[in-house]
Amino acid sequence: MAQITSKPRPPPPQRTVPFAVVSVLLPCSAALIGAPFLYPSSTLPFLSASLGFALLAFLLTLTLVPALGGAFLLADLKGRDLLKRATHYIPESIGLIAASVYIALLILFIPFPFSNFLQNDEKKKLVEGLARADFPHQQLSVYLAAILSLLIATLLGFLDDVFDIRWRHKLPIPIIASVPLLMVYFAEGGNTRVIVPKPLRFVLGNAVDLGVLYYVYMSLLSTFCTNSINILAGINGLEATQALIIAISVALNDSLYLPWRFNLTVGESTHVGGVYAAGMSYGSRELMERHLLSLYFMLPLIGVCSGFLYHNWYPARVFPGDTLCYFTGMAFAVVGILGHFSKTLLLFFIPQIFNFLLSCPQIFGIIPCPRHRVPRLDEKASSTLLYPSRVQFVEPPSRLATVILKVFSSLRLTDLCYDDETGRIKSATNFTLPNVILVIAGPMKEPHITIAVAVIQIAGSCLAFSIRYGLSGLFYDGDRR
Amino acid sequence: MAQITSKPRPPPPQRTVPFAVVSVLLPCSAALIGAPFLYPSSTLPFLSASLGFALLAFLLTLTLVPALGGAFLLADLKGRDLLKRATHYIPESIGLIAASVYIALLILFIPFPFSNFLQNDEKKKLVEGLARADFPHQQLSVYLAAILSLLIATLLGFLDDVFDIRWRHKLPIPIIASVPLLMVYFAEGGNTRVIVPKPLRFVLGNAVDLGVLYYVYMSLLSTFCTNSINILAGINGLEATQALIIAISVALNDSLYLPWRFNLTVGESTHVGGVYAAGMSYGSRELMERHLLSLYFMLPLIGVCSGFLYHNWYPARVFPGDTLCYFTGMAFAVVGILGHFSKTLLLFFIPQIFNFLLSCPQIFGIIPCPRHRVPRLDEKASSTLLYPSRVQFVEPPSRLATVILKVFSSLRLTDLCYDDETGRIKSATNFTLPNVILVIAGPMKEPHITIAVAVIQIAGSCLAFSIRYGLSGLFYDGDRR
Repeated sequence: MAQITSKPRPPPPQRTVPFAVVSVLLPCSAALIGAPFLYPSSTLPFLSASLGFALLAFLLTLTLVPALGGAFLLADLKGRDLLKRATHYIPESIGLIAASVYIALLILFIPFPFSNFLQNDEKKKLVEGLARADFPHQQLSVYLAAILSLLIATLLGFLDDVFDIRWRHKLPIPIIASVPLLMVYFAEGGNTRVIVPKPLRFVLGNAVDLGVLYYVYMSLLSTFCTNSINILAGINGLEATQALIIAISVALNDSLYLPWRFNLTVGESTHVGGVYAAGMSYGSRELMERHLLSLYFMLPLIGVCSGFLYHNWYPARVFPGDTLCYFTGMAFAVVGILGHFSKTLLLFFIPQIFNFLLSCPQIFGIIPCPRHRVPRLDEKASSTLLYPSRVQFVEPPSRLATVILKVFSSLRLTDLCYDDETGRIKSATNFTLPNVILVIAGPMKEPHITIAVAVIQIAGSCLAFSIRYGLSGLFYDGDRR
Repeated sequence: MAQITSKPRPPPPQRTVPFAVVSVLLPCSAALIGAPFLYPSSTLPFLSASLGFALLAFLLTLTLVPALGGAFLLADLKGRDLLKRATHYIPESIGLIAASVYIALLILFIPFPFSNFLQNDEKKKLVEGLARADFPHQQLSVYLAAILSLLIATLLGFLDDVFDIRWRHKLPIPIIASVPLLMVYFAEGGNTRVIVPKPLRFVLGNAVDLGVLYYVYMSLLSTFCTNSINILAGINGLEATQALIIAISVALNDSLYLPWRFNLTVGESTHVGGVYAAGMSYGSRELMERHLLSLYFMLPLIGVCSGFLYHNWYPARVFPGDTLCYFTGMAFAVVGILGHFSKTLLLFFIPQIFNFLLSCPQIFGIIPCPRHRVPRLDEKASSTLLYPSRVQFVEPPSRLATVILKVFSSLRLTDLCYDDETGRIKSATNFTLPNVILVIAGPMKEPHITIAVAVIQIAGSCLAFSIRYGLSGLFYDGDRR
């Protein structure tokens, strides 16, 4: 075992990128991006370009992270891995590289869906000045507003890393970042009505106009998506794994609405809607386009998250910083708002909602909340097993806290430690999902915790799909737009 | 005189903001922003709101800079003033605060011109989904693309401050920042034709389509606007003063195109164009709207630059960092591109063009270029006078360099120093505008240099107006769109 020196050792070398991967995937990416030029008359020519950009996002993140990591160390953006025995610093805030690649590619993607350079010459009727006929200006505005929100989230996330903003001042950051989106939504006279669930319709009618409350709801959605990933963090690869699985789930859900050649729905309603009817769009071009727009955001996100995860996986060579949580959370909020499927989106956050509810007693101060709640390494043992971190009760817990602790303990959500003499609760494991996993399954190695959370996240997504396409018929009409 | 200690002293207190200014201007700002609600039928209701936002930008920058300066010191974003005898550090990169205020207000301004919440109810015909009829989607896209470009310039400027990017890697930054604008310009099938000057029309015709070259021209414009301000920097208040005067000049030029109640043009063409004819728009609503859009960007820029200048004026309490040059330069490029008046814009950069041409021999390595070329304090003397900084010739200058040095010296653009024994040129003053001012007018105090540059900048703008509205008739038709 390496001797622990007081002076930080030089950081370990960055993970090398297999040349074979780059040399195979780069031509694939170029071919996919070039496909719309070769086959402009295919049904969805720009989806292939988006896939190509996703591959490119993966490759760029994969190669730029090790190349630029050194610059972050020099700029003092570095951190020590608290769950390792090594004392070296590794680059922090590398989410900035992932975010920059993501946003740059989203910008370079603009001409594909939003210009008509691939359309028939007949349609290319030049109108005076800038504009051409049939140009989807409105879609471009919301796309640009979304990128603007993502960029603000990235900038504020990075400022958070540089200035180390206090937890309380951090909370409104996603609200600020969502302002461009809300402004454009408002400027375009966005729809603020929501469909009322069937059981409540006798009171509220079919739809209710939430007005200003709808904007509050949207900004809270971005706050939730961002912070719920941010509080389930601190273990190598955990943030990127969550973002990756949610992004894949959203993309899978989106793909259900594409005009497939074969029929996805069971039995009914295939005779309406022509080409769009083969998916879940039930003939609605609008519904299809919303999910297509969502895919344009999710595919490159899958790319950057996988590329980043390669370097962030145990033992991590780089840290994400808050930047990663901010821009990925914002990306989910953006597609949920623009695609009008925020309830479905929240279903993919089941593990994060569980973790948030679990954390509430500590967040709201009923039970003391230490600065770090991540599982800890046993300093005495020489193994690399992680144990649940504990909150120590200097003063005896209040009556309310004692009730919560006892209930959580009986549900095996926390492990209590009693004082032998007084019989009072001396300490409890912190209320986070990783700690619950360790309480139930016993000490494990760091990467196994990440894998366990990933399995829970995938199970949550399976549950989400079965609720959305199974149970929701009880509360909503099948043919929803 | 204060004793110079080796240990940095605590920074001087930030400049206090007069309470009277805030308490008078804040209600004014609120009234101007509220005016469109009270008088929705005025000719240009949103211009008053824009003026209100400009006042708000001034007040926010004025108050936020001293409030947040301490956080920058803590985050190690600080610098020592090389032209002072004091050894304390003051906050650096404060341009970030100015940029954040500017961009936040531009975003909050969106609903004013781009929604129809103030229009008559008759026009408020709800169209299915998001959109409403008669909504200026296209203008909103370019507005959002412009904000996106400004935000990228800000982020990259701040990254430059944090990572201290090398001069050669910096140059393309404005090109990257201009990509969203170029993408949207392309996606909207933007016009790439330029009007040919009269004397060349017999060869090229009335107009020539530059195609891809037009995009190259636009990205070079943003590079020029940004870097030309950045290389004329280093003296307290200099960057902000330049930006302020250019912004005021552009705004004055824009105001010529508004529908005034009285006639601005001499004699001709008042009978066409109705209300727009009173300005220089010659009846073109399009031309008026372009300049109105430009005003929406310039007025808040004037606000943030003045607010920032209050704290950056000699003796500076904060430094702008590269961030200020990046976002102000980008703002000028944005209005030049969107407003289609890039040639007029360049006329307002006469001092910067002069400084750039002057710097060329040093930029291109014909004459050695030291890291800092700002004037210097005479370490031996106890006065606060600044002297021109000099480049020392370790090796004798080449023949080409000698010719340039002799020509520049005869034009009083540099001051040469000869070796008494060999008669060779030993040193020369650096080729920048502040040094030329010192060579011609003798040593001065630091704020007087800033004032001298400001006077030159104002004189340049006067020249620009006389060229634009006097001489340009020789090369172009009067009635240009």
